[in-house]
Amino acid sequence: MTLASLTASEATRDIREGRISSVDLTKACLAQIDTTDAQIGAWAFLDSDMALAQAEAMDDLRRRGRPLGALHGVPVGIKDIFDTADMPTGLGSPAHTGRRPDADAAIVEKLREAGAVILGKTVTTPLAFASPSTTRNPHNPDYSPGGSSSGSAAGVAAGHMPLAIGTQTGGSVNRPASYCGTYGFKPTRGSVSRRGALQTSQTLDQVGGFARSLEDLALLTDVLTGYDAADSATHMRPKPRMLEGYRSETPVAPNFVYLDIAPFPLTDAMRGAMDELCEALDGQVDRLTAPEDFAGILRDQHTIHTYEFARNLDGNAAIDPQHTDDIMKDLVAQGRAVTDDAYAAARATVTAAEAYFAAFFNDYDAILCPSSPGEAPLLSEGTTGDAVCQKIWTLAGLPTLTLPLFEGDAGMPMGLQLVGAQEEDARLFRTARWLEDHLFSADNDGEDDDDQGET
Amino acid sequence: MTLASLTASEATRDIREGRISSVDLTKACLAQIDTTDAQIGAWAFLDSDMALAQAEAMDDLRRRGRPLGALHGVPVGIKDIFDTADMPTGLGSPAHTGRRPDADAAIVEKLREAGAVILGKTVTTPLAFASPSTTRNPHNPDYSPGGSSSGSAAGVAAGHMPLAIGTQTGGSVNRPASYCGTYGFKPTRGSVSRRGALQTSQTLDQVGGFARSLEDLALLTDVLTGYDAADSATHMRPKPRMLEGYRSETPVAPNFVYLDIAPFPLTDAMRGAMDELCEALDGQVDRLTAPEDFAGILRDQHTIHTYEFARNLDGNAAIDPQHTDDIMKDLVAQGRAVTDDAYAAARATVTAAEAYFAAFFNDYDAILCPSSPGEAPLLSEGTTGDAVCQKIWTLAGLPTLTLPLFEGDAGMPMGLQLVGAQEEDARLFRTARWLEDHLFSADNDGEDDDDQGET
Repeated sequence: MTLASLTASEATRDIREGRISSVDLTKACLAQIDTTDAQIGAWAFLDSDMALAQAEAMDDLRRRGRPLGALHGVPVGIKDIFDTADMPTGLGSPAHTGRRPDADAAIVEKLREAGAVILGKTVTTPLAFASPSTTRNPHNPDYSPGGSSSGSAAGVAAGHMPLAIGTQTGGSVNRPASYCGTYGFKPTRGSVSRRGALQTSQTLDQVGGFARSLEDLALLTDVLTGYDAADSATHMRPKPRMLEGYRSETPVAPNFVYLDIAPFPLTDAMRGAMDELCEALDGQVDRLTAPEDFAGILRDQHTIHTYEFARNLDGNAAIDPQHTDDIMKDLVAQGRAVTDDAYAAARATVTAAEAYFAAFFNDYDAILCPSSPGEAPLLSEGTTGDAVCQKIWTLAGLPTLTLPLFEGDAGMPMGLQLVGAQEEDARLFRTARWLEDHLFSADNDGEDDDDQGET
Repeated sequence: MTLASLTASEATRDIREGRISSVDLTKACLAQIDTTDAQIGAWAFLDSDMALAQAEAMDDLRRRGRPLGALHGVPVGIKDIFDTADMPTGLGSPAHTGRRPDADAAIVEKLREAGAVILGKTVTTPLAFASPSTTRNPHNPDYSPGGSSSGSAAGVAAGHMPLAIGTQTGGSVNRPASYCGTYGFKPTRGSVSRRGALQTSQTLDQVGGFARSLEDLALLTDVLTGYDAADSATHMRPKPRMLEGYRSETPVAPNFVYLDIAPFPLTDAMRGAMDELCEALDGQVDRLTAPEDFAGILRDQHTIHTYEFARNLDGNAAIDPQHTDDIMKDLVAQGRAVTDDAYAAARATVTAAEAYFAAFFNDYDAILCPSSPGEAPLLSEGTTGDAVCQKIWTLAGLPTLTLPLFEGDAGMPMGLQLVGAQEEDARLFRTARWLEDHLFSADNDGEDDDDQGET
């Protein structure tokens, strides 16, 4: 096992106890990038010297007996739509190459406060929208890593760093996690400040993360959450503590529900994997057919996303014809064509969906749902894949967690998605931990199930 | 023991476990205020209904299984120089009575996020400066509670609430803590954001807190610390975790130093108390005479404070002659008379003092120092007391912790101050815990030493 394959939880412990240094860890990550990134293309900006200088500063704090952060010395990749004061932030668009923000985004501040090394900026699809990026799937370079957080998912999967940050407006965290075989988590809407991130949809944009273990994802999320007066979606109420959830025991075996949602075009492999999972959880999974409204929610999500995107980016050079492609042009045109009345009607769905799901989770700990219809699409298909399996949950602001459990016919990874109640993110981690322990208890003693990503 | 005498640590545990409600606790605090505040005068603004509505909201979150904060349901008093969006913020000046800020101060946001009940606004001396407030010492109403955080210290001592927030520019946290017999803590400069607080001195203003146990002070401080782009004194480095410090064991018995500082006009009682303490710590206390420069630091502190105060408040109606007194007039005149060159020279002392103390704590865990020259002054003396015992540490940005250990000739409390290295606040809590355990081990089993305030 190399240093680059350590989880963040292992690495922070080893750094705290002096067994490894942040410089060694960062060098190992840089070496892994050096070996593999020519093929993968996960990075929009990477400067080894800048990364190592941060690592050295974190090692220096430790040597001087200064406080250590929750992610002390651990390299983290940042999707290139988050502002960084010391690195360019290109938004995935040639119109913004080399753009230099004045200040760090809120999540970058939080990560630095936690002692993380900001390794570099990961490739995003243009403006975090639907056009593909140039990143390739680390499991097979003929396949897409998904989007829009392409580089963050691919980089974590390829061992470039244990943790990375993404955003999800449709399905841009959980879908690439599914395609790249990583863990992915998008917390409850309003958990993480979006200050300093490109705003594409004020209603739907949400921050999330990627990791190679469930514990790591909990650790990362606890660092990111918090109120910020600059983001009106955040709130001053107490936050769920993911690590506490991860570490706690379920009082009884959790109740799951598998919602069969007609418009989800699942592959046979994904349908088979979900059936097998439900069988393995015999007696704990209710099967329900989703209400008719769910097709309507998908349409409303598209209406809100395109309407807000077109207006947020209006006048931005990145959507000028010479800087974009037909996919972007078409979506912007769709957004411009949405009337204010149609938008208002779609917005009403958000409130309705929140109310519906507020009651729903009285009966269930989590919804089981595929993280994608199937395996990643081939790059030649010219798409980052279908976000259909996330759009409803993103619109409703629910926490969604992807576990890399399945494999498709082409041998590519596919994720299971667990969907929880708003602000019960910690309970969702508890449920996910139970599920991993339960599923893997045949293979081992159940203690290290969440560490499978390291082996 | 009544609910109002619970520490915050006990109260949050009892609330979490359902033994008491935040409403019951808040009612008990309000009843205590009702009984005693006519005499003490700790409150600038208090609305029982507003406090109880917050408490009810915190109880409601618990009933619904929502996340609970570190101070869930615990009433906290806020010095009336911190903005509150829902309560007037009068700055202790008749010129600002009823002033309504637009937004909460950073520390109010943090407290709400931790589930605290913002009980009300405590009396501050006018503009947090040297003129006395109308608050009386709860131990004897003929005496001053100290200032400028008069109401916060007096209220915590009188059982109005377990925790309160203050600020220290000269000695406005540790001195009133000493006079009122509470614990008080001012963390390392830059630990807590001052956004939304009255700025009197950008160099010296620092946020601190009051409590009735050491553990409570650690709990409170951990909630308050954090980077804020709006306060350039804060930084993105990892923060000390006070509760971890409080709960950890010292590897060996700590080394103390008692700095005999010539200009400190200690009473015989205080000098005797310090001598007795040093004897009890026989072999662990070096006695040093402070360098000559220390008198210079005191003068430079005054130069910086008055210069910055006069310019920060320039044009503010609160320093118009009809709204103020001779003490304020004199200090403002002194500040206006300081030349830019004299100010720059004094500012250089800050850097020099920081450098001096950075090396100093290689040899010592903490400086032992009185928290005040002696007991509180009588109200009739027309002063909030002498901040001489804090000014050097405040200027150097060091963490300072007051323990209510001593009693003067008039039976009034006096505090011991522990001074630590910058950013080693957690170590200071560890050292203080050791000291309490050590001093009280003759009286009990050493487990509950920090709870003496409740008995």
